[in-house]
Amino acid sequence: MSAKEKGMLIVISGPAGSGKGTVVKLLREMIPELGFSVSATTRAPRPGEEDGVQYYFMSRDDFEEALTRGEILEHTVYCGNYYGTPKAEAERVLNAGQDLILEIETDGAMQIKRLYPEAVTVMLIPPDADTLEARLRGRGTETDDVIRTRLNRAREEIALSGKYDYIVVNEDNGADRCAADIAGILKAEHHRPCRMHGVTDNFFN
Amino acid sequence: MSAKEKGMLIVISGPAGSGKGTVVKLLREMIPELGFSVSATTRAPRPGEEDGVQYYFMSRDDFEEALTRGEILEHTVYCGNYYGTPKAEAERVLNAGQDLILEIETDGAMQIKRLYPEAVTVMLIPPDADTLEARLRGRGTETDDVIRTRLNRAREEIALSGKYDYIVVNEDNGADRCAADIAGILKAEHHRPCRMHGVTDNFFN
Repeated sequence: MSAKEKGMLIVISGPAGSGKGTVVKLLREMIPELGFSVSATTRAPRPGEEDGVQYYFMSRDDFEEALTRGEILEHTVYCGNYYGTPKAEAERVLNAGQDLILEIETDGAMQIKRLYPEAVTVMLIPPDADTLEARLRGRGTETDDVIRTRLNRAREEIALSGKYDYIVVNEDNGADRCAADIAGILKAEHHRPCRMHGVTDNFFN
Repeated sequence: MSAKEKGMLIVISGPAGSGKGTVVKLLREMIPELGFSVSATTRAPRPGEEDGVQYYFMSRDDFEEALTRGEILEHTVYCGNYYGTPKAEAERVLNAGQDLILEIETDGAMQIKRLYPEAVTVMLIPPDADTLEARLRGRGTETDDVIRTRLNRAREEIALSGKYDYIVVNEDNGADRCAADIAGILKAEHHRPCRMHGVTDNFFN
C-alpha cells in the first residue's frame, strides 16, 4: 500500500460467545501494522491513565455535544458512562494510510456502514445455538435469567449477519483459523479497485 | 462448502502481457477442485477430438441460433470461428457446487456480470506500460504494427479494470504470487452472506 493511500476501515462485530475478543487479539498479532484509535469516554480516569493515551476523557456535556455535532462515529453506554470512537481519531489513523479495526455492536456497525460505505464489515458467529449456550454458561457465574437475556441478545445480533459484508464462523478452538480467515478477507479487500488508486495511471500518460 | 450450495462463478480477464494463462494454470493447480466447463465452437474437430470432451462442436447455424436464444453466456470470434461458453454447461458445474473459472475478455466479463451479479470478476494487469510493451515484444515474432495494435488493445482493457471486483498486478516473476492472491480472494468471497445459506438457521429453530 502506498503512503498516500487511505487506510481501510474494518468493523468487526460478534455477539457474546462468538470469541471476538480472542480473534481480534490474534488478528492484531498477525497484522501488527493495523492502526489503533483511542476511544473517548465519560468515565473518570483511573490512577496512571493519561488523556489521549488510554482514552480521551470527556465530560458528559462535552460528549453529548460531540454526539450532536456528529463528531463521534459510534458509541455505546456501559455502567452509565459513554464510550465512543471520535471521528477525528479514526480519520487520523486512516489518513496516515493505516487500516483501522473497530470492534463494535450491530447498531454501531450499521451506522458506520452508512457513514463509510467502503468500510469492510465482518460478523463473527458461533457455529450453532448449543455451542453458543455452552460458551455463555461456561463462565459459570451467571443466573439462568442472565444467560437467557444474553442468548436472546446474541440471537438478535446473529439475525443481522446477512447485512454484513462477510460472516466468519468460530468453531470451538477455531480462533486461529478465524483470525487467518479475516486476515485473508482484508488482504482480498486491498485488491478492490477503490483501494488501488493510480495503479493503472502509468498506462495512460 | 456444503453439497447443496451453488458454486461461485469467477471471471478472470487480463490483456495480452498480463500473464493470465500462466496465473490461471497455477491457480488450477492450487485449487484442484475448481470445475471445468467445456466450450462450444464452430471450428471442425481435429483428429482424436470428441464432441463434449475438448469442445462441443456446433454448426455455424446452430451456434448463431443458440446465441439468439441466450444459450451462450459469452462468446468470441477467432480465425473466423465462434468460441463460447454454453449456459447449460456453466450451470451444470455451478449446480454441482463447484466453482467455475471463465477466462474471458472485458466485453464478455461485463456481460457475465450483468447476467450473474454475484459473479466474482478479477482483472490481471501488468505493473506498467514499459513492462507490458517488453512482454509483448518479448515474443519477438511480431511487426511493430502488430505490437502497437496489441498495446492499444491492452490499454483499452486495462482502462476497464475499475469495473472489475478486484485488480491483481502481475509483476515480473509474480505469477505464483498472483495465483495465491486470487486464491485468497476466492476464499474471502466464500465468506459472503449470499454464499453461506443456512449458516445461522440453527439459531432460530
